[in-house]
Amino acid sequence: MPELRMDPIKQRWVIIAVERARRPEDFQIPPEEKKLHACPFCYGNEDKTPPEVFAIRPSDSPPNTSGWRVRVTPNKYPALRIEGELAREGMGIFDRMSGIGAHEVVIENPDHNRSLADLSIEEIRDVLLAYRERIKDLRRDQRFRYVLVFKNHRSAAGASLSHSHSQIIATPVTPFIVIQELRAAQEHYLKKERCIFCDIIKQELAIGRRVVRADDDYLLWTPFASCFPFEVWLFPLKHRHDFALLSDEELLILARAMKDMLLRIKLVLNDPPYNFVLHTCPSLTPRPGKPHYWGTIEYDYHWHLELVPRLTKIAGFEWGTGFYINPTPPEVAAEELKKIKIEL
Amino acid sequence: MPELRMDPIKQRWVIIAVERARRPEDFQIPPEEKKLHACPFCYGNEDKTPPEVFAIRPSDSPPNTSGWRVRVTPNKYPALRIEGELAREGMGIFDRMSGIGAHEVVIENPDHNRSLADLSIEEIRDVLLAYRERIKDLRRDQRFRYVLVFKNHRSAAGASLSHSHSQIIATPVTPFIVIQELRAAQEHYLKKERCIFCDIIKQELAIGRRVVRADDDYLLWTPFASCFPFEVWLFPLKHRHDFALLSDEELLILARAMKDMLLRIKLVLNDPPYNFVLHTCPSLTPRPGKPHYWGTIEYDYHWHLELVPRLTKIAGFEWGTGFYINPTPPEVAAEELKKIKIEL
Repeated sequence: MPELRMDPIKQRWVIIAVERARRPEDFQIPPEEKKLHACPFCYGNEDKTPPEVFAIRPSDSPPNTSGWRVRVTPNKYPALRIEGELAREGMGIFDRMSGIGAHEVVIENPDHNRSLADLSIEEIRDVLLAYRERIKDLRRDQRFRYVLVFKNHRSAAGASLSHSHSQIIATPVTPFIVIQELRAAQEHYLKKERCIFCDIIKQELAIGRRVVRADDDYLLWTPFASCFPFEVWLFPLKHRHDFALLSDEELLILARAMKDMLLRIKLVLNDPPYNFVLHTCPSLTPRPGKPHYWGTIEYDYHWHLELVPRLTKIAGFEWGTGFYINPTPPEVAAEELKKIKIEL
Repeated sequence: MPELRMDPIKQRWVIIAVERARRPEDFQIPPEEKKLHACPFCYGNEDKTPPEVFAIRPSDSPPNTSGWRVRVTPNKYPALRIEGELAREGMGIFDRMSGIGAHEVVIENPDHNRSLADLSIEEIRDVLLAYRERIKDLRRDQRFRYVLVFKNHRSAAGASLSHSHSQIIATPVTPFIVIQELRAAQEHYLKKERCIFCDIIKQELAIGRRVVRADDDYLLWTPFASCFPFEVWLFPLKHRHDFALLSDEELLILARAMKDMLLRIKLVLNDPPYNFVLHTCPSLTPRPGKPHYWGTIEYDYHWHLELVPRLTKIAGFEWGTGFYINPTPPEVAAEELKKIKIEL
């Protein structure tokens, strides 16, 4: 009998196929085609991207030249534009807004052939540091309500270039999925004066069946109502609403947990296409005429990272219902993901 | 400058790339690989599927033999199971429910090589008739809250068999996306005593820029906040909350509008992968212990059909935000889709 499961944060039902669970060997992952054209993200091609907005590079190395370790540039084909005024208008029954925002690319390392999972813990820390600095900088822009960091790995997951990179998009409205999380967290807090994420962590550590790895700082687990096979969430054990508040030392600890997560996904599923998203609190800068809804956010929200391998197709049923069908129960996914031993 | 748009029914923002709009020739649609193994949906293979639950066939032709024009059978690999009791339980902070439901396949015609767009208007009417009868029958089951009819065309849109078919899934909860639509429609009605869909129809007919085709019965249009390039919605002009109330004669009129829609998509986009979903009212059978939320549904809801060609990828940004990025403004899509002349 399949199961329907609901996550208290996402508040969406998922259909989980409990019998005949699909294991890693049941998914076909086609090898990525390597294209051999000039890569705009490699050393020497710094002029092929818009000028950098952030980089980690030796102090004697000028901007937009080689020598960088991590480099952030505006996206050459941005989904939203940085220049212009934020105009809002009604069009009869509809609403529109000018497409103001920021869209940046984080080139994670100079080597064309190393993916994020292959980087050292220190190199991953530098990528996280770039995320943090860009989030802090973009939040200063009063037009933006939210800054999302995300990654598309391999073309089947939406990456248009194979050189390892993440993306950052700042949006002039708080995204619907984030609002859903914020509301669920706030409601739980107002009722119970406890963080819903902390409650979940406590319960999951006690049950253990969906825990992939836990140490003193992070819990890597397969969520109860996973939408995708081998979906994993990385929760910091320490309650903190904002990723951008992490210190350099704390980022190094996170980098270790991330490398462990990325290696498990890579090794167990044969380097699958995946997406990850970093969910942290929205931009909290007060602005005129706009009430501040998230007054308890420091207590009720808990930043985290969600990773979804892309092994199944999204089709008409998902589109028409918002339901997902997941052929791999999270308990089976956790079992497979914790089998392998990662030494860091 | 891109635009952000919100649909009053879906209440989700979409990013529309207004400059450099992608036209049909900008999308690469790989030809479908034809597999030559035995097809369980062809004549003579009726025993390869579970026994039929509905068929249109000559009166002297026995069930589960050849001779049918449309045939509906339970899905051999159902996402939800028909047998069993609907159990609901909390698991600590989480919720689960047994995966009770129905999952059926509508084999649209016996010919392996004709897609839905290739069928005659009468043949499409028969498919619609099968939808209607199955919806009515499945609604009799008190365990089900909603019956969704949908279609995945081509493997890139999730079809696992190439013989043309649609699917029907009855779920034990009303799907999240449908609840969103129902709520938006009810709120609008309670405030204005008008149907939001009727309001949209009136506005769109007056503006005309997103109208692909309109006659006395149906409006085919590209929605203001389309999530996908060349997304089209088919709205009946006559206010009706329930598709299942359509008479045979009305289904024939709908079949004509559907054939027009399917041919336009096929011809303009070179037979793209697509999904369509039929959104009609939920099962309204009263049940003990459950309040009936949709008391004004006859007045506020309006059944309709939504079709999305699958030309773009859903990646990390969409997953993390619920936003879609659509590179083809609906005004451009409408222009392209109405260029061709369809004679029916």
